[in-house]
Amino acid sequence: MPGKIRTAQSVSFDVPASEQPYLHNRWHPDIPNIASIKPGETVKIECLDWTGGQIKNNDSADDIRDAVLTKFHYLTGPFEIEGSEPGDLLVVNITDIQPFDHSPWGFSGIFARENGGGFLDRHYPKAAKAIWDFDGIYCTSRHIPGSHPGQVVALAPYEENSHAGKAGDNLKAKIAREGARTIPGRPEHGGNVDINNISRGSKTYLPVHVPGAKFSVGDLHFSQGDGEISFCGAIEMAGVITINFGLIKNGMRERAIMSPVFRPGEVAPLFGPSRYLTFEGFSVDESGKQHFLDATIAYRQACLRAIEYLKQFGYSGEQAYMLLSCAPIKGSIAGIVDVPNACTTLGLPMDIFEFDISVEAKRIKRSPGSCPVSDGST
Amino acid sequence: MPGKIRTAQSVSFDVPASEQPYLHNRWHPDIPNIASIKPGETVKIECLDWTGGQIKNNDSADDIRDAVLTKFHYLTGPFEIEGSEPGDLLVVNITDIQPFDHSPWGFSGIFARENGGGFLDRHYPKAAKAIWDFDGIYCTSRHIPGSHPGQVVALAPYEENSHAGKAGDNLKAKIAREGARTIPGRPEHGGNVDINNISRGSKTYLPVHVPGAKFSVGDLHFSQGDGEISFCGAIEMAGVITINFGLIKNGMRERAIMSPVFRPGEVAPLFGPSRYLTFEGFSVDESGKQHFLDATIAYRQACLRAIEYLKQFGYSGEQAYMLLSCAPIKGSIAGIVDVPNACTTLGLPMDIFEFDISVEAKRIKRSPGSCPVSDGST
Amino acid sequence: MPGKIRTAQSVSFDVPASEQPYLHNRWHPDIPNIASIKPGETVKIECLDWTGGQIKNNDSADDIRDAVLTKFHYLTGPFEIEGSEPGDLLVVNITDIQPFDHSPWGFSGIFARENGGGFLDRHYPKAAKAIWDFDGIYCTSRHIPGSHPGQVVALAPYEENSHAGKAGDNLKAKIAREGARTIPGRPEHGGNVDINNISRGSKTYLPVHVPGAKFSVGDLHFSQGDGEISFCGAIEMAGVITINFGLIKNGMRERAIMSPVFRPGEVAPLFGPSRYLTFEGFSVDESGKQHFLDATIAYRQACLRAIEYLKQFGYSGEQAYMLLSCAPIKGSIAGIVDVPNACTTLGLPMDIFEFDISVEAKRIKRSPGSCPVSDGST
Amino acid sequence: MPGKIRTAQSVSFDVPASEQPYLHNRWHPDIPNIASIKPGETVKIECLDWTGGQIKNNDSADDIRDAVLTKFHYLTGPFEIEGSEPGDLLVVNITDIQPFDHSPWGFSGIFARENGGGFLDRHYPKAAKAIWDFDGIYCTSRHIPGSHPGQVVALAPYEENSHAGKAGDNLKAKIAREGARTIPGRPEHGGNVDINNISRGSKTYLPVHVPGAKFSVGDLHFSQGDGEISFCGAIEMAGVITINFGLIKNGMRERAIMSPVFRPGEVAPLFGPSRYLTFEGFSVDESGKQHFLDATIAYRQACLRAIEYLKQFGYSGEQAYMLLSCAPIKGSIAGIVDVPNACTTLGLPMDIFEFDISVEAKRIKRSPGSCPVSDGST
Repeated sequence: MPGKIRTAQSVSFDVPASEQPYLHNRWHPDIPNIASIKPGETVKIECLDWTGGQIKNNDSADDIRDAVLTKFHYLTGPFEIEGSEPGDLLVVNITDIQPFDHSPWGFSGIFARENGGGFLDRHYPKAAKAIWDFDGIYCTSRHIPGSHPGQVVALAPYEENSHAGKAGDNLKAKIAREGARTIPGRPEHGGNVDINNISRGSKTYLPVHVPGAKFSVGDLHFSQGDGEISFCGAIEMAGVITINFGLIKNGMRERAIMSPVFRPGEVAPLFGPSRYLTFEGFSVDESGKQHFLDATIAYRQACLRAIEYLKQFGYSGEQAYMLLSCAPIKGSIAGIVDVPNACTTLGLPMDIFEFDISVEAKRIKRSPGSCPVSDGST
Repeated sequence: MPGKIRTAQSVSFDVPASEQPYLHNRWHPDIPNIASIKPGETVKIECLDWTGGQIKNNDSADDIRDAVLTKFHYLTGPFEIEGSEPGDLLVVNITDIQPFDHSPWGFSGIFARENGGGFLDRHYPKAAKAIWDFDGIYCTSRHIPGSHPGQVVALAPYEENSHAGKAGDNLKAKIAREGARTIPGRPEHGGNVDINNISRGSKTYLPVHVPGAKFSVGDLHFSQGDGEISFCGAIEMAGVITINFGLIKNGMRERAIMSPVFRPGEVAPLFGPSRYLTFEGFSVDESGKQHFLDATIAYRQACLRAIEYLKQFGYSGEQAYMLLSCAPIKGSIAGIVDVPNACTTLGLPMDIFEFDISVEAKRIKRSPGSCPVSDGST
Repeated sequence: MPGKIRTAQSVSFDVPASEQPYLHNRWHPDIPNIASIKPGETVKIECLDWTGGQIKNNDSADDIRDAVLTKFHYLTGPFEIEGSEPGDLLVVNITDIQPFDHSPWGFSGIFARENGGGFLDRHYPKAAKAIWDFDGIYCTSRHIPGSHPGQVVALAPYEENSHAGKAGDNLKAKIAREGARTIPGRPEHGGNVDINNISRGSKTYLPVHVPGAKFSVGDLHFSQGDGEISFCGAIEMAGVITINFGLIKNGMRERAIMSPVFRPGEVAPLFGPSRYLTFEGFSVDESGKQHFLDATIAYRQACLRAIEYLKQFGYSGEQAYMLLSCAPIKGSIAGIVDVPNACTTLGLPMDIFEFDISVEAKRIKRSPGSCPVSDGST
Repeated sequence: MPGKIRTAQSVSFDVPASEQPYLHNRWHPDIPNIASIKPGETVKIECLDWTGGQIKNNDSADDIRDAVLTKFHYLTGPFEIEGSEPGDLLVVNITDIQPFDHSPWGFSGIFARENGGGFLDRHYPKAAKAIWDFDGIYCTSRHIPGSHPGQVVALAPYEENSHAGKAGDNLKAKIAREGARTIPGRPEHGGNVDINNISRGSKTYLPVHVPGAKFSVGDLHFSQGDGEISFCGAIEMAGVITINFGLIKNGMRERAIMSPVFRPGEVAPLFGPSRYLTFEGFSVDESGKQHFLDATIAYRQACLRAIEYLKQFGYSGEQAYMLLSCAPIKGSIAGIVDVPNACTTLGLPMDIFEFDISVEAKRIKRSPGSCPVSDGST
């Protein structure tokens, strides 16, 4: 008879992340597995937030400004998935994600341009921060009042060939030398996918490249928008993820899957199609220069337009920027065919605001407080 | 008492598009208005397909291969919206889009690489075509059997400063010289937006730049996916669009809207979040080269992965390419922050297929016919 | 090559309904078929409104008050579906429903208590009427301003053993004597199902009871709420329905389907779950008397509560009653287990109103005109 | 700075429910409050399952058969909501519902006809049971394999004038004499509403009838269908509910709300409209007798039809009956106007099954085990 779901790995809030041997932040096939999981099994895996606890629940953005990026992106793992071999598909069915009861808060941040930066760093070069308090499926921020962007949704870098952690000294040196950073996503593995819809109920099919798969996970998000446009833009949190693992032998060839594929879950925040105010962005940059089918620049324009729009309601640029980053916005590739201009759209759900943001709404200047912003000097 | 909705402009199927004076395919403020519409009024506007009837309902792709692109993109207009002035917002509320009863079919095409090309023209360089027969809200193609991608959804280039058409000879020369092509979208106007969700029930807010607004419309689509990845990839059709116009005086400044903004309608094809099989694409190109946060390349990878996946079910590459282009796929900007790799996703609705395309489904090799493909030589 | 979809039967607006031989309003197996349709075929079928044109586009409810109910419910048919036999399942795939271009209006009505009445006739005993003008997928009423309830959705009595119409005199007498009224639904056939979701894109599986199936259709609705709580509460219209027919031989036994089953279409007005204001109703009647698990009484209470709520915004009781009847409300059987009280809910979509009807909204007394109400005397 | 959310009341798994003084199962205004909550505050409230732990995680239905119904329906409370007075509206915003980590299972049951019975007890008179194991948002049952009906959704009896619990002996006698059972819903309070959509994110407005409101809660459900057609049909569980309370002073009169009104949350399991197989039911009973507009009988027919349909796939009647009761089916009042026959529908989500249940699917006889059923004798 099934009982309580077992915890495959727990983490500590009292020991520095860099001293917890079941955490790592490099990909390398020689990182030793920390534990084994059987296909068919459901386990809980605890994760620190992606900074390993460097960001504090306070009203200064100095910790964001001074963050040491090389010490970021702690994942829990790698786990051996028993019997998995190169060519298989690992099936990752997320059945739950929860913040820790004892730590019901998260954060969003804008990194300083000289320390990581982000998608709009030419426009917003200073470090900024917002703390979010969780209340069940909702969250609110004293730093961005008037909205409730989220529900526990997002996720984190899956992977199967990862590094550091439990390795001995010699191995650690090798990993530091040869290992790839875990932050960018890669087509071969799931990498750091940061995809809005990979959340509770989703099922992801990951190609296996190393024996045992070497699966790691971390960087949990409470909520996130498409693009996660600020570098640390999602609502970052520590928490527990529950995963049911499956394995499709020889699935890469037999299912024609060479890079990750997923099916979102059936449970989603649903706002109704007409409840999105949608901003168009074209690949004509801020200076008026046209770029050939550049969807990245087009999306930047859509983001900038939406920020200007939100300023009318009293938000500062930094507040709006972080809000777009962590709210469940829809970032779509609308047209990528009408040369030379790519067209993207940013759909902003109107129902996350406590007031009416429609075009027709009265422009009542509100006072939604402010978020901490740090000067560039340390 | 309101009666039948008036038709502001009809078109002819018997006269060449280039000889119908209420059609044009350049933007220029000197193109004379063909008619006036009052704010608050609802009118029907007839439109030819975007090629002006060059593509025929037959089983050869030679008309696509030999198409004269400079003679494409016919819009109906421009219309004066009475009382509109620069700085206003024109409100375009689409209350209906219908194909003509007498012409219940449309087409998708892949343009030859040497004649227009398209998003994947390095991979699919030859001209190809698919004809779609409309049956109410559904359509099917003898050239891509086994799917029913669509419902009348998409739309077309809105605009307010357009050209050619009714102009006299001298003016025509000036327009040909100075006019901009209508095909690429532009941030100032709606341009050729080709956006999946601008359909029945949608309300678009367009900045007005010239007195009278000079609104034109055309290039109707029966169905379309995000990105419309093949250049002529939507299901292109002739038809009738019904629009209710509104005007917000000084809306650009007072509503902080400098480029088009829209709200989709409440009526949409709805497949359920878990009914999308979603392919990830990163900005690592076909040769393995990494491109810095390039969402366009990332989306190309997602498209190519999805095409390879669909080939397992018997489709040719061209069939799959056109299907992705005209089906209501979701193209999302998933992550644009994890330098250096942009991440995009392509969500393929499983319910447009008459058979099971899930990862778990049995791979039964089907024989979904073929679509006409033309050699490069004329 | 497929061409224009054929019209299996047209109707006339110039001849009285009772004189059009392809219309009937009784079920009887001896009514002669008016035409044949092959399985696999798609046809258009024209229909008058259910009253056969008795209700006029004017500002008096006298035509509702004085309506002759025995002359109502005209269906077009019956059609022979070739090859269908008792025990088969007829598959009715509705691919489109449209009002006539030349007649873009419909009506809702409350029947007088002494002439038909309706669900709330003890509370609203007088005849009332609202005329709706269609504008594409939207409609508005000069008699119930401030809302836009609908899109062409609903449908009508399917059937397979029907009567009158083309019959000769002797047969007509027999049918009048033996025939069943077409108005109430019956478990064996589809009857007059009046179901909100049987609309465009839906697929209904109907048991066949007589050779040739004898399918009829009519009583089209532009929009309707669950329950169609006023007897003539939907937005009734004349129009054209497009149907693709299929046939599953021996389907009743082999699929275990003894009464109609359907799958709604993928296209629906979608308001988002949180955009419904939902009223509970229990089986305790207006006088406080408890009725054992009576869902009908429970739903009446929910309706009455919602009407009282809407009155705050200036609507008269009759206006609110008709609005609930034709708007896409959700009427749910919430709990039918907690003896003795059945619990039902009525979900009112907030987005059909042009103003905020939330509990939190300011109560600004509006003046939404009035609808015609007739005295009881003729 | 907000910290961990406080638990307003915890419960014990070691002490009998009847001996825990903060539980009660009668409504009476004299039951003493167990604690106070301030408007604006968010608290966690622990609840036993509605039987107080009488049903065990085993493979016999004897505990259902022999259950003592008078000892059922334990609620936690009543809580004083500070400052609330008759005439106010209490706002109950559920921000989370979770099972206990140490007890990740729930149950469904069919009560024996001679001991409580249920909606279909003439057809299924024996006691039966199914145990469900929770795995994050999913659950599965060894007693009804092949489906995964649920996500933590449902809820429980809100109330404001309740009883027993902390009362002294004299008072207990009075309450036993005068108190109302908590099981049936009542229009004045929320009662035992058992409504599918009152779940996470929902906001319910409850009329206040006694000073302090006296709010109680319990009878949590993991999943439930419309109607909860078996008496104990939902997936019953013990767990923790998190509520944010609000208060609208004089809201009953000023908002015209005399019985409970709610808005569902934005997060819902979403299956897509076309993914429901929908069964019609009319008010013609099993013996063919017609009942005047009786929605209860009509819904019973829809349930019976759906059960017969599911039997084709190998389920026993009891398995299908319990599945319909706990799966998120849609029970709709389809037509309540076409005298004499009420029409209801039961929409069965096809995506909760691990195999294809469409009409077109091949009928492969499966062997979905069995659920325990008990004979009538004790």
